[in-house]
Amino acid sequence: MLKDSRFLKLTGITTPIVQSPMAGAQDHRLAIAVSAAGALGSIPCAMLDTDGIDAEINAFNQSSAGPLNLNFFCHKPLNSSAATDKAWKQCLATYYDELGVDIDSPAMAPVRNPFDHTTCELVEIHKPAVVSFHFGLPDAALVDRVKATGATVMSSATTPAEARWLEQHGCDVIIAQGLEAGGHRGLFLSHDLSGQSGLMALLPAIIDAVSVPVVAAGAIGDSRAIVAALSMGAAAVQIGTAYLLTPQSLISDLHKQALKAGTAEQTALTNIFSGRPARSLRNRIINEIGPIAAGTPAFPTAGAALAPLKTAAEKIGKNDFSSLWAGQAVHLCIEQDAQILTEQWINEAKALTSPFS
Amino acid sequence: MLKDSRFLKLTGITTPIVQSPMAGAQDHRLAIAVSAAGALGSIPCAMLDTDGIDAEINAFNQSSAGPLNLNFFCHKPLNSSAATDKAWKQCLATYYDELGVDIDSPAMAPVRNPFDHTTCELVEIHKPAVVSFHFGLPDAALVDRVKATGATVMSSATTPAEARWLEQHGCDVIIAQGLEAGGHRGLFLSHDLSGQSGLMALLPAIIDAVSVPVVAAGAIGDSRAIVAALSMGAAAVQIGTAYLLTPQSLISDLHKQALKAGTAEQTALTNIFSGRPARSLRNRIINEIGPIAAGTPAFPTAGAALAPLKTAAEKIGKNDFSSLWAGQAVHLCIEQDAQILTEQWINEAKALTSPFS
Repeated sequence: MLKDSRFLKLTGITTPIVQSPMAGAQDHRLAIAVSAAGALGSIPCAMLDTDGIDAEINAFNQSSAGPLNLNFFCHKPLNSSAATDKAWKQCLATYYDELGVDIDSPAMAPVRNPFDHTTCELVEIHKPAVVSFHFGLPDAALVDRVKATGATVMSSATTPAEARWLEQHGCDVIIAQGLEAGGHRGLFLSHDLSGQSGLMALLPAIIDAVSVPVVAAGAIGDSRAIVAALSMGAAAVQIGTAYLLTPQSLISDLHKQALKAGTAEQTALTNIFSGRPARSLRNRIINEIGPIAAGTPAFPTAGAALAPLKTAAEKIGKNDFSSLWAGQAVHLCIEQDAQILTEQWINEAKALTSPFS
Repeated sequence: MLKDSRFLKLTGITTPIVQSPMAGAQDHRLAIAVSAAGALGSIPCAMLDTDGIDAEINAFNQSSAGPLNLNFFCHKPLNSSAATDKAWKQCLATYYDELGVDIDSPAMAPVRNPFDHTTCELVEIHKPAVVSFHFGLPDAALVDRVKATGATVMSSATTPAEARWLEQHGCDVIIAQGLEAGGHRGLFLSHDLSGQSGLMALLPAIIDAVSVPVVAAGAIGDSRAIVAALSMGAAAVQIGTAYLLTPQSLISDLHKQALKAGTAEQTALTNIFSGRPARSLRNRIINEIGPIAAGTPAFPTAGAALAPLKTAAEKIGKNDFSSLWAGQAVHLCIEQDAQILTEQWINEAKALTSPFS
């Protein structure tokens, strides 16, 4: 029996691993594979429309009887001013010239929708075991509706203050998102990056700050970190980057190549791809105008100005303008089926005895 | 028996804990207390002259038969230009006015000496079991002389690349210094802070990168983190901040008060106190001109301009200009004797069984 078995009981999983929802990088296939290993599969909904979410849930349910985690962003959409958008695009003018792309051609940022009334209806219809949020929580009325379905509600905290806020606002489980984690930081109370903690400090601090179960995220890349996090009192771990080289991953070959060559010091928190800080492998655009740039348009619209450059560069085999999401445990990524990988991790973790034995 | 018992065998300690050398914050008394608990006591030498180092070693040896770790900085002293010094002081002019301090009064930065021929002679005379360095290693000829005494040589790595460099240059043990750690970052190959990793990512990455034993540092604040780090394969842990409220700590009452109120998100990496990045609790000067300021004079001379302000403010009970070194596990600091604390940690750690049991 796991030291803190509350998360297993709440969700019905047998393997204390949550597959990180990674919008744009995976679909039901990854969720099905980890579910087959007894872990919690997740479907990221932020980049899908309602039909897309519906189709993903149905595809999952056709192949797995396990619990499902539906993940939503819950940012407040902000519009940048036209002046900000224009100034940001001007920062990139030399790149448009270099690639021969018309700077005035219309471009859309990757869609990232916040949770709303319509997506809440999908939750009410499908009744997933778990609903997780990123960037805080949606309005209280929506949280109440989700909880009324019986779903376990989770969200990410990057500080003990955020963990306490989430618990006070109805979260059943807190994800402690260490600074090591790949992709978007879930931060929502303070946007000061200097106060963000590594998981080794954050996990005990959040466990001490709240009474609900805590899931450890960030730098969990193999059985060593799984045992470490569970030993510190986590009720489960959340793993993302380490699934990105599995056959169930949908990332580009360019992204995969970067992951294979990547090391922790080659990642950085950057705001240039979306307008919010997220951890990516360094590439040309991060090195030249980032990692943190002033004057990015509001999340998620900052990506619009880079989108045509990304498309043009990828056509000639370059990742110069692509977000290459990765956590700091990137060197542990291996090419292996996600179900087999999950089973290996947990079996190795169970075999590890006390370091003093 | 510890999973990786090489460090215990090399040093002769029985408790796999290294007391972090904390220049300015402790002397032989802390080293003696942790030594009495079977751990490795350390004497920080960077702020002492040779007579001071000699006296500290003798005081330790009078009260402990245990092994001793002598710690040295090994930065290359750089002189700032007079123009840089003057411009930096001008940044602080309003504070001089506010406190009624003459901005033209001469002021010295806290002394931080690098390891050299003279201090090497002390090592040759006293033959400590361990000699540890911060900011890389001294010149090869000095490293050779230290190794010829039979001392185990350690240094801090903040990236896998630094760990490999240290191993190639003769280090017997690598300290993996996670981003969470208090005080000065040991970084020496790259000064890009965006590439610094949390311990949960850094520790396995360094263990995978080198063949020598690895000591885990940063956010080790109680038995939970000790078990976590040792489970991941560390041969020992290094603990600093968690000793700062012991009666053996020499920090000011203002610093102690700040630690008691501190949380992880209230620390920041700042270069304003010395010219190199170090983790401190936030205070007024960090909030107003930092945490990372451009134009600081070279390490360690940046402290000179703040020294008169620190003195004047502390006289009226304010920590506005004081370095308040602390790691991100600051919330775990408790007031307890260092020997008892060390014994409690290790006994609790040994009692923790596998999280799956």
